[in-house]
Amino acid sequence: MTGFSSGCREFEKPYHAIDLSSFGIREGISEVIVSTGFENPNAAPIGVITKGGKPFVRLFKGSHTWANVAKERYLASNVVYDPLLFVRSTFFDLEPSEFEYVPAGGLKFPILKEAVAWVVFECVNVKNTDQALIAELVPLEAGFNEEHRKDLPVPNRGFNAVLEATVHATRYQLSGDEKYLEWIRHYETLASKCGGDGEKKAMKLLYEVLGI
Amino acid sequence: MTGFSSGCREFEKPYHAIDLSSFGIREGISEVIVSTGFENPNAAPIGVITKGGKPFVRLFKGSHTWANVAKERYLASNVVYDPLLFVRSTFFDLEPSEFEYVPAGGLKFPILKEAVAWVVFECVNVKNTDQALIAELVPLEAGFNEEHRKDLPVPNRGFNAVLEATVHATRYQLSGDEKYLEWIRHYETLASKCGGDGEKKAMKLLYEVLGI
Repeated sequence: MTGFSSGCREFEKPYHAIDLSSFGIREGISEVIVSTGFENPNAAPIGVITKGGKPFVRLFKGSHTWANVAKERYLASNVVYDPLLFVRSTFFDLEPSEFEYVPAGGLKFPILKEAVAWVVFECVNVKNTDQALIAELVPLEAGFNEEHRKDLPVPNRGFNAVLEATVHATRYQLSGDEKYLEWIRHYETLASKCGGDGEKKAMKLLYEVLGI
Repeated sequence: MTGFSSGCREFEKPYHAIDLSSFGIREGISEVIVSTGFENPNAAPIGVITKGGKPFVRLFKGSHTWANVAKERYLASNVVYDPLLFVRSTFFDLEPSEFEYVPAGGLKFPILKEAVAWVVFECVNVKNTDQALIAELVPLEAGFNEEHRKDLPVPNRGFNAVLEATVHATRYQLSGDEKYLEWIRHYETLASKCGGDGEKKAMKLLYEVLGI
């Protein structure tokens, strides 16, 4: 609101002027790749949790994403349908050339070139626990990459299996519990049976990372 | 090709003039809802298998989809992101009002109103085995429903869990093997944790169908 009152009704920009469901952030947990770091861009798969229309994240201590958000209080969600990029960004640093920059909060913020859609969020009401940082997300800017919207996504059990295998792989790395390897082998079979080339390459990389 | 030769190079319409990946049919197995039946429209989830760019289906004997395709040799793939519709169309007949009709092969063919994109295929080189019908698919007509493209799909482990639970539920009904119930309960937990309202309703219906 400006200080000037004309006697006319004043329209305020609504708190959430960005329709998040158009940019792939929906009720439940949206599995996106989060990019962070104004100076040193980083990317990692994160579930953006939305309850009652309000998005938030829980970031585990020690990760690059956690460190960047703790310091800078910004993150971008990137909707990605490439299974290999999920696995690569889980276990490796992406190349600087895989990011592009968009205006947000008066600065330039890194998003993924491969993103079909992206939203830059400010992180507010940040709470720190022993293990994690929890932040509510206020959308600032959002956009599409029309070039990547050409292929229509379709439910594919092979793609889904890569996601599950990646989740189990991170748990295996943390715990060493071999039950996770059984899950991963189950999902490798599904990815191989139901996936396309991308799913097969993604599972091959996952196996290399785990040394199995 | 026409019979008239002008000496100019003649451009032929390619065999597959429809870019299937734009309509959600991609390499690997695309989990769509297939509609069939010029007179008695039916819908059921089917995996359209694409290898080397060529789509085909394997339809198990005894289903409505199998009977319609065996008789009429047409089917439509419908890309759907609604988890409840996957469960409903697996176990129940949809309402006639849930279909609309599009021109294909000189006739009117049923597709789902809820489809984000659809392709009507002619089924060719049909082979019958003891258990199934296998048919190659030649795309005839395709379209989008722009209204349903507004919400951008995003990977969601809850949605994926509903798909897996539905697959396991059909196997449980065929075999009675209780191992499938363990899988289903695992996926119910995931759908409840990661899904939105649609995923929760879909799993509730699945539990009712199974009587668990």
